[in-house]
Amino acid sequence: MRELGIGLIGTGFMGRAHALAFRNVSAAFELPVNLRLAALADADPQRGAECARAWGFTTAHSDWQRLIDDPAVHLVAITTPNHLHFPMAMAALAAGKAVYCEKPLAVSLEQAEHMHRAAQAAGVVTRVGYNYQHNPIIERARQMIRGGELGQIISFDGEFCEDFMADPAAPWSWRCEPSHAGGALADLGSHLLAMARFLIGDVQAVCADSQTVHGQRPAAAGSSERKAIVIDDHTQALLRFANGARGTFSSSWLKHGYKNHLSFEISGTLGTLSFDQERLNELRLCRAGREGFERILAGPTLPGYAAFSPAPGHQLGYNELKTLEVHELLMAVAGQGQAGTDFAEALAVERLAAAIRVAAREERWVQVETVQAKGR
Amino acid sequence: MRELGIGLIGTGFMGRAHALAFRNVSAAFELPVNLRLAALADADPQRGAECARAWGFTTAHSDWQRLIDDPAVHLVAITTPNHLHFPMAMAALAAGKAVYCEKPLAVSLEQAEHMHRAAQAAGVVTRVGYNYQHNPIIERARQMIRGGELGQIISFDGEFCEDFMADPAAPWSWRCEPSHAGGALADLGSHLLAMARFLIGDVQAVCADSQTVHGQRPAAAGSSERKAIVIDDHTQALLRFANGARGTFSSSWLKHGYKNHLSFEISGTLGTLSFDQERLNELRLCRAGREGFERILAGPTLPGYAAFSPAPGHQLGYNELKTLEVHELLMAVAGQGQAGTDFAEALAVERLAAAIRVAAREERWVQVETVQAKGR
Amino acid sequence: MRELGIGLIGTGFMGRAHALAFRNVSAAFELPVNLRLAALADADPQRGAECARAWGFTTAHSDWQRLIDDPAVHLVAITTPNHLHFPMAMAALAAGKAVYCEKPLAVSLEQAEHMHRAAQAAGVVTRVGYNYQHNPIIERARQMIRGGELGQIISFDGEFCEDFMADPAAPWSWRCEPSHAGGALADLGSHLLAMARFLIGDVQAVCADSQTVHGQRPAAAGSSERKAIVIDDHTQALLRFANGARGTFSSSWLKHGYKNHLSFEISGTLGTLSFDQERLNELRLCRAGREGFERILAGPTLPGYAAFSPAPGHQLGYNELKTLEVHELLMAVAGQGQAGTDFAEALAVERLAAAIRVAAREERWVQVETVQAKGR
Amino acid sequence: MRELGIGLIGTGFMGRAHALAFRNVSAAFELPVNLRLAALADADPQRGAECARAWGFTTAHSDWQRLIDDPAVHLVAITTPNHLHFPMAMAALAAGKAVYCEKPLAVSLEQAEHMHRAAQAAGVVTRVGYNYQHNPIIERARQMIRGGELGQIISFDGEFCEDFMADPAAPWSWRCEPSHAGGALADLGSHLLAMARFLIGDVQAVCADSQTVHGQRPAAAGSSERKAIVIDDHTQALLRFANGARGTFSSSWLKHGYKNHLSFEISGTLGTLSFDQERLNELRLCRAGREGFERILAGPTLPGYAAFSPAPGHQLGYNELKTLEVHELLMAVAGQGQAGTDFAEALAVERLAAAIRVAAREERWVQVETVQAKGR
Repeated sequence: MRELGIGLIGTGFMGRAHALAFRNVSAAFELPVNLRLAALADADPQRGAECARAWGFTTAHSDWQRLIDDPAVHLVAITTPNHLHFPMAMAALAAGKAVYCEKPLAVSLEQAEHMHRAAQAAGVVTRVGYNYQHNPIIERARQMIRGGELGQIISFDGEFCEDFMADPAAPWSWRCEPSHAGGALADLGSHLLAMARFLIGDVQAVCADSQTVHGQRPAAAGSSERKAIVIDDHTQALLRFANGARGTFSSSWLKHGYKNHLSFEISGTLGTLSFDQERLNELRLCRAGREGFERILAGPTLPGYAAFSPAPGHQLGYNELKTLEVHELLMAVAGQGQAGTDFAEALAVERLAAAIRVAAREERWVQVETVQAKGR
Repeated sequence: MRELGIGLIGTGFMGRAHALAFRNVSAAFELPVNLRLAALADADPQRGAECARAWGFTTAHSDWQRLIDDPAVHLVAITTPNHLHFPMAMAALAAGKAVYCEKPLAVSLEQAEHMHRAAQAAGVVTRVGYNYQHNPIIERARQMIRGGELGQIISFDGEFCEDFMADPAAPWSWRCEPSHAGGALADLGSHLLAMARFLIGDVQAVCADSQTVHGQRPAAAGSSERKAIVIDDHTQALLRFANGARGTFSSSWLKHGYKNHLSFEISGTLGTLSFDQERLNELRLCRAGREGFERILAGPTLPGYAAFSPAPGHQLGYNELKTLEVHELLMAVAGQGQAGTDFAEALAVERLAAAIRVAAREERWVQVETVQAKGR
Repeated sequence: MRELGIGLIGTGFMGRAHALAFRNVSAAFELPVNLRLAALADADPQRGAECARAWGFTTAHSDWQRLIDDPAVHLVAITTPNHLHFPMAMAALAAGKAVYCEKPLAVSLEQAEHMHRAAQAAGVVTRVGYNYQHNPIIERARQMIRGGELGQIISFDGEFCEDFMADPAAPWSWRCEPSHAGGALADLGSHLLAMARFLIGDVQAVCADSQTVHGQRPAAAGSSERKAIVIDDHTQALLRFANGARGTFSSSWLKHGYKNHLSFEISGTLGTLSFDQERLNELRLCRAGREGFERILAGPTLPGYAAFSPAPGHQLGYNELKTLEVHELLMAVAGQGQAGTDFAEALAVERLAAAIRVAAREERWVQVETVQAKGR
Repeated sequence: MRELGIGLIGTGFMGRAHALAFRNVSAAFELPVNLRLAALADADPQRGAECARAWGFTTAHSDWQRLIDDPAVHLVAITTPNHLHFPMAMAALAAGKAVYCEKPLAVSLEQAEHMHRAAQAAGVVTRVGYNYQHNPIIERARQMIRGGELGQIISFDGEFCEDFMADPAAPWSWRCEPSHAGGALADLGSHLLAMARFLIGDVQAVCADSQTVHGQRPAAAGSSERKAIVIDDHTQALLRFANGARGTFSSSWLKHGYKNHLSFEISGTLGTLSFDQERLNELRLCRAGREGFERILAGPTLPGYAAFSPAPGHQLGYNELKTLEVHELLMAVAGQGQAGTDFAEALAVERLAAAIRVAAREERWVQVETVQAKGR
């Protein structure tokens, strides 16, 4: 069995989530590769060493290029801030290594297009961390939709809102910078756009509206210095899918009471289905002819769930979605995967987000395919 | 105390709802008028006579013009099919009588404009039956919004969907005819547009999309003859309110599982509030600083509720919303009311719906005020 | 058609609820009697006269015995405080008149037994106001149970809790007096016991526990004088039904957050069904073989609902349950009814409540049928 | 730092859950010990070897006694069928090793008492797998209760029901045998009893009722041979806590629609709090003075949650509760823990369950402390 050395860049929230996932995946699944936690990179050598020990990585590098060059590393996982995705992924592709990059793919459509072309040229497996798609109950929803159980799809109404920026005293951060892919649309909305594509398919045209509600924020927590804010606090859009379905979209980080409300409702001629990431183990479904909505709890009839528990109602957590994402990635690397969320797909998500930006700025319907790199 | 004779036209669902409301209102409230159920009109003399007896009306007419001319009638309530609203209301206004007309005001923007001008000229009280506004818990929501409890309003996301046309075998009816104000937008959506205006205020601009999913339907139940359908099964829109708030709107009568899902969520800088007409005695509210959404049940601290029950959690029903609407009407007739949903306001709702139609047809943002009668 | 004159005693909350119901019933139903609102009694002549006028009663009496003796009165409706139910009902029965008495039937088991015997001797129709049973969706639940749709009934778990006495500063009232049928068990719990009997059938044996949490309360609102409280704030019980089903029961008026939470869940070999009076237009049902609970909204397929609305999801309110109760009463008076909640049934409810009191006091299982009048 | 070698017996559902937890715990926490996955035992040598490799254990034994004797093993984790808990734990204690045993502690009260005495004599750390207590939001509930935020506790109403035995064709298994601690009370209910003790405290007295609904089941799936069933399908009880609170308890494995419905509601003089294991990341809370119930989502202000995610609403899964349990165990082994669910506490749970059995059989209230080993 092929040996696969993992090189992980970054030790923050997402770094640890990746580390947990790579550790768990071999206990949860029979793997098609011989997985090695080869190397970890963090600019701070001490932190790198500590995390490597705690998480079971063989080596720690303080220079990420050294990790990429490390011959024990066959797959590079990138969990650094958004603006570093581009140089790291390009270097890894240049080194002919598989790349697993956190979302968003890049901080501009131009970067994303470059990365996609480089990935095509390199011919390696790439994946981008749209982990919510790996929820087994989402996979079931997708199969229902693709298999016709909901009939012709009429509409997809989606919303992703949280409240972590609702307080006007919440300070400026890189999430407020366009150059770092900040804003509610990029930070939250892109997850929902990826989900819409995953479940329904291509979006052809969009019309949109954005607003910045809090035009300035403290430069830092508690600071009296104010920084001007130009990114969107709230964006909404109408969507036209290639298959004829229509959709509404909204994304906000100002909505009190929501913590992770990636939610949608899909209406088809044979049923209605809804989901809320805040209750990630549930679907709500009403089939034609039934009296009302039925609550469906995830259980071991879903393969991804069965990998973790033989009993329904026991519930998976966020980190297990990440483990399922890693499993899909490893299957792909072993040549046993299916089409996944690779750089091509992540570029399509970025292009859709860019089209929404253009539509909002120019106050008109925009054909998604016409949006090119300079669109941002 | 002034005597007020009620003349009711129509004995269908809405006719009976009006009759129940006029009967209940004097038991629930101290009225500023001496209410008389003077006359009922139905084209079928036998049905008219039976309903008049059962519902307590003094006289029955088979010709509605006779009811309008009846000197015992001071207020004309119109519950007939939509295309009859115009001639009946115009006749009542010409006779100088107050008019209480079911929604929609008319079947064209042109008619609605005429009716509004006639009402202004007549100088009488007019009301249109957007009864969902008369829910005491909606009144509370409005006071919260108007009083600043939610802070600056960021968004209004509303949906009105039902499933009564979801079955493609559901036959053609007048609701499928543009000439009778058919379609999901006019039939359902107008309630939601009226609610959006009631709670948030004027809408300045809209962008929209409509679709007809079932392009033909049986000419009658079980018939093999098919009629082509051109009205919308589903319409969605983006809204820009005059106060800067943004909104999404959707309306569908094809959505399995919903029976009366007029729902909305309002996001403000100080809180989030949501409502669903299928649970009309509840609000869901998260104030800034609270951990999550709180469920609020209607109770007797709300004046309209106290008129019916001294105990919270006992719940009002649809017919009591109608009774509250009638009470507001009677207060207005007695000169003790506030601004209500009169013909001017109903015209504004029609203009907004017309703007959505134009925006969908012409695939562009439309300024609502620019839409004139020929817009339809 | 027989003329039926109604005499209503009491003008409080329940008096008005009765008045509204008697007014509504003829608009909602074709009645088998010619209903007349003959007389109203209130000890305060002015209030009696005002209410009679507002509610449409022909006459007002300040002496309730005069109302009972009034030859225009054929049915006596009793809505006075609990301790007056006995003398009023006994007088009405002595006069050979039908009696519609609010719950509880009486303030002691001894009284209740006397009233039952007097009703049997008089041979008139009697009804007691357990109005929650007249909810159309409860009638559907009952038919499901009786028709075997849930299979063999395994358990009935019921709870009726509110929070109106949760504040220790809530003052003493007659509801705190055993001699007035006070306490959480009598005031709230008896509704739930009546519901358990209505849906499942006779209870054979009970075991129970009661507690008084707030042993004294202000003598009046804001008073510094304290009165000792001996009735139960909270009572819980185990139930054994004659058909083999088991049950848990609890009743509290100290439970923060609940306003009218008469709720139950019934488990059968073919399904689980649950209900909450705070959402009175809904059932939650999971049939064997289904994935999860389905929400069922009341609609016009339920006859009692159709009397008020032709559209599902529009919802009935509390007062309409009362109207349905009055309709059932009038059908019974006309000889067209079925077995209803008459004095015999209300006595059975009282006996069951008394058995729970004995079981709690004596800390043992009690056979319900062995509890006789001195049991309290 | 002390080295701690883990020996895990069993490779079924619970074996894997333990393995995942031991693997995850060092990535999620800074540990006070140097954790080694020393040995795995499974009677089937091939399965043992495979699982050891996949899960990262150094050695595999086919004889569990060898694992206990292995000097590299300092802590023995027991995940075998219930009837093996006793011999394995006794052997591990005899060897002076810490023991982490799955629930129930034993299959008889006599065994449990022996195990408790042996643990006391050995002076080692013991833990029993009542993992639901390790939910961070449950820890918060406990702190609220213990800290007085809910005031004086009035009631604890708990239910644990599932539907995995609801189908009468579900075959006999060891879960149907009293000698293997089968039945709804032992299998499910004991989790709820442990939770009641964890949150509220000692139970002094109980009254109870049990029923076997399906008196026989197929001997195996699809078999026409029938085996008689004597254990309980459904048990309910009244509880009296030492602190004066009262409670209802029920447990069923026949309740259609439920998958893991360990749920409870706690009423206190200052608030009501409820929880459902099927939505393990949520509490529902109504504080005195608030209008209604608030939904609280788990987030990183809860230490156990923060170990896995820095963002609220992302949700923990069942396996992470197990990891938290293992963390608490490791802290205890390192002498840094607090009182946990050791053999003494697990014995108290068993005694409480035994008291419920006695109360049901003898149809009387039973003082829990009087129940000794022969009680079963």
